[in-house]
Amino acid sequence: MTTLRIAGGSVLRPDMSVSEGDVLVDQDAGEILAVGDTDGADEVLDADGCLVMPGLVNAHGHAAMTLLRGYADDKPLGAWLQEDIWPAEGELGPEDVRAGADLALVEMIRSGTTAFADMYFHVPEVAAAVDEAGVRARLGHGVVTVGKDEEEAIADNEESLEVAREFDGDAGGRIETAYMPHSLTTVGEEYLREFVAQAREADVPVHFHANETRDEVDPIVDERGVRPLEYADSVGLLEDGDFCAHGVHSDADEIELLAERDAAVVHCPASNMKLASGMAPVQQMREAGVTVALGTDGAASNNDLDLFDEMRDAAMLGKLAADDAAAVPAEAAVEMATAGGADALGFDSGRIEPGANADLAVVDFTAPHLTPVHDHVSHLAYAATGSDVRHTICDGSVLMRDRDVLAFDEARVRERAQQRAAAVAERARDV
Amino acid sequence: MTTLRIAGGSVLRPDMSVSEGDVLVDQDAGEILAVGDTDGADEVLDADGCLVMPGLVNAHGHAAMTLLRGYADDKPLGAWLQEDIWPAEGELGPEDVRAGADLALVEMIRSGTTAFADMYFHVPEVAAAVDEAGVRARLGHGVVTVGKDEEEAIADNEESLEVAREFDGDAGGRIETAYMPHSLTTVGEEYLREFVAQAREADVPVHFHANETRDEVDPIVDERGVRPLEYADSVGLLEDGDFCAHGVHSDADEIELLAERDAAVVHCPASNMKLASGMAPVQQMREAGVTVALGTDGAASNNDLDLFDEMRDAAMLGKLAADDAAAVPAEAAVEMATAGGADALGFDSGRIEPGANADLAVVDFTAPHLTPVHDHVSHLAYAATGSDVRHTICDGSVLMRDRDVLAFDEARVRERAQQRAAAVAERARDV
Repeated sequence: MTTLRIAGGSVLRPDMSVSEGDVLVDQDAGEILAVGDTDGADEVLDADGCLVMPGLVNAHGHAAMTLLRGYADDKPLGAWLQEDIWPAEGELGPEDVRAGADLALVEMIRSGTTAFADMYFHVPEVAAAVDEAGVRARLGHGVVTVGKDEEEAIADNEESLEVAREFDGDAGGRIETAYMPHSLTTVGEEYLREFVAQAREADVPVHFHANETRDEVDPIVDERGVRPLEYADSVGLLEDGDFCAHGVHSDADEIELLAERDAAVVHCPASNMKLASGMAPVQQMREAGVTVALGTDGAASNNDLDLFDEMRDAAMLGKLAADDAAAVPAEAAVEMATAGGADALGFDSGRIEPGANADLAVVDFTAPHLTPVHDHVSHLAYAATGSDVRHTICDGSVLMRDRDVLAFDEARVRERAQQRAAAVAERARDV
Repeated sequence: MTTLRIAGGSVLRPDMSVSEGDVLVDQDAGEILAVGDTDGADEVLDADGCLVMPGLVNAHGHAAMTLLRGYADDKPLGAWLQEDIWPAEGELGPEDVRAGADLALVEMIRSGTTAFADMYFHVPEVAAAVDEAGVRARLGHGVVTVGKDEEEAIADNEESLEVAREFDGDAGGRIETAYMPHSLTTVGEEYLREFVAQAREADVPVHFHANETRDEVDPIVDERGVRPLEYADSVGLLEDGDFCAHGVHSDADEIELLAERDAAVVHCPASNMKLASGMAPVQQMREAGVTVALGTDGAASNNDLDLFDEMRDAAMLGKLAADDAAAVPAEAAVEMATAGGADALGFDSGRIEPGANADLAVVDFTAPHLTPVHDHVSHLAYAATGSDVRHTICDGSVLMRDRDVLAFDEARVRERAQQRAAAVAERARDV
């Protein structure tokens, strides 16, 4: 057994208490062995002045959209998608997706994220990037059937299922998958019914967008006379293990349904604010017992992949949504970004306890903006940023040591992303 | 003439365009000499891969509250103030205020802030810290008269005026001052009438909190039958040069009044979200021609002093408030944090042009989360953080070079702040 000891810091425990002590890791099994007074180890990682916390979980995003970071902003959702994002995405080839995914992975590792969910296309490229980077991921191919004929629509769904079957368990078990119909309004009912059933047979969960904007809710209510998540339930979605992004415009009955079915919601506060989508009822969801995770969404609507921003946004927007400064406290924000995310994605991560995956972020608390330390958890939610992360560990392996990302040549990743992004923009604007 | 050349980067111009070029500074005058192709200079500061932007302006805050960062969170405003903040502030002596101000100054310089406004007490300590740090500030003593007898109330007002007279023009002109009645509900009408008039005679502007929460607006409307800013106008406030913090609950008539009087509003989006105060109508204010600046408010309600967070929050919350993704675009956020702030505080800073104060932040654009660069201004508003600032310059002097703050021993500032904060917390909780 090869062991790693993260030594000399404080540790964030699952009950959100903080105690001094080490974290001892079994690197072969990729698991936490012990927390507290430990000794020895093959390798020691210094955590003096640091807090060891669970690696952050980015439970909804589109990694390769880093190439479109800052490409178009400050436009209403429809115009933004139709005039800018979709034309640019139409120009993304497999190598572009790989370049964007590599950049996203460098950014996530540098900000303490050890697991993420990704809905995109050219999934084999994303899987190869995840394999190389060393993080954990639940990957899938996003399906859209509107505007497609039956043959194309079926092919798109089949690709999503095929990818889910092929890559599940890849990268030494770090990659799991999902069937990913884009949303309840962009995939036809007949396809949802057929392919959700096939996903159940293949034993892969389902990830989709739901209730992001009013424009997505109203047509379903008008046409079907039920709320979107009631419709989702009726076509076989919302089983335990499924997770939907956003859920901004969810009413009390839908929240109850999510809790009953044990389907998770991925709250994306920055994206919801930037696209003026609205304020998700996060406090009500948590009170109802819904598993709530956090996600950055794509870098084009955020515009970074730093989960520390998302914790801060979730706590602050959650208070505004509830009209109550006591709503979504710091502990809730940190829980959603760690255990909540891991629960949503079905990973045994997100809690520092023996037997759990050794997915960890070591946060340096000696910066001026984290001084003084009255309360570590408050600082994680309200004052820390991704650049305060000193080391990142996933599956027992050190992915970043002293701000140096080990698997990638950062300068090369940045250079390639810059070149490919410029070429994509040129092609898209020439069309 | 001693000159400084910031060389090899790009420059953010007052019209929000970006061009390659140098910035040449007259260090004796503290002014920008030229922008573009320049040559020579006594000192050269490398800006390769960087954007030179105006130093950020933090137009409303309480610097020494850094000692209370994370001391109490997630409570409704009233309980938070009465149970936690006021008892702790009651324990702050002059040396505590100096320790907290030093910490705030280190944090602000590290995140590219070159000017700030401060409303607090033990102002001579804050002034000494500003003098040593090298930044620009408009300082004042905050007056509260509710709960005080007439003698105490007059003494508090007189202290505010005295401080404003004494420190105006201090630190080689980098310090200016204001008379600072805390708010329209915490200072009695008779005192406002008397001391605002005295402030006019002393030629110092007035800074106060207004319309932060509904609880502050409703009593004035109920009691006086006018909106709070109409009342403010009636007692002599809202002259050109005055600036009020928050303005969250301002109606169309009040916005019109602010524009007519040329009084500025300091928008504090993070604090407004964290205390569930509401969403300021920033887009409407800007459309009406009101000068809008940005502020962090105190570190206890934010919880950091990073204006990059405030730009992002202002752009995102502004869209949500306006229910329009096109509202408060990136350019507006950057403008509020630079030229808007300088205009609100009456400093000839915030724009990179010959003759303006040489108050500058040099932002490194080579980080993964700022790659690719489709649009520099988008990145400033949505993706950059204070830790991306490489050099900070104020009044022609380099305050931070390659992340090294020159005027302070950072480790000592942090250590002293930690010790004093712990002692304050212990005293406050013993009471």
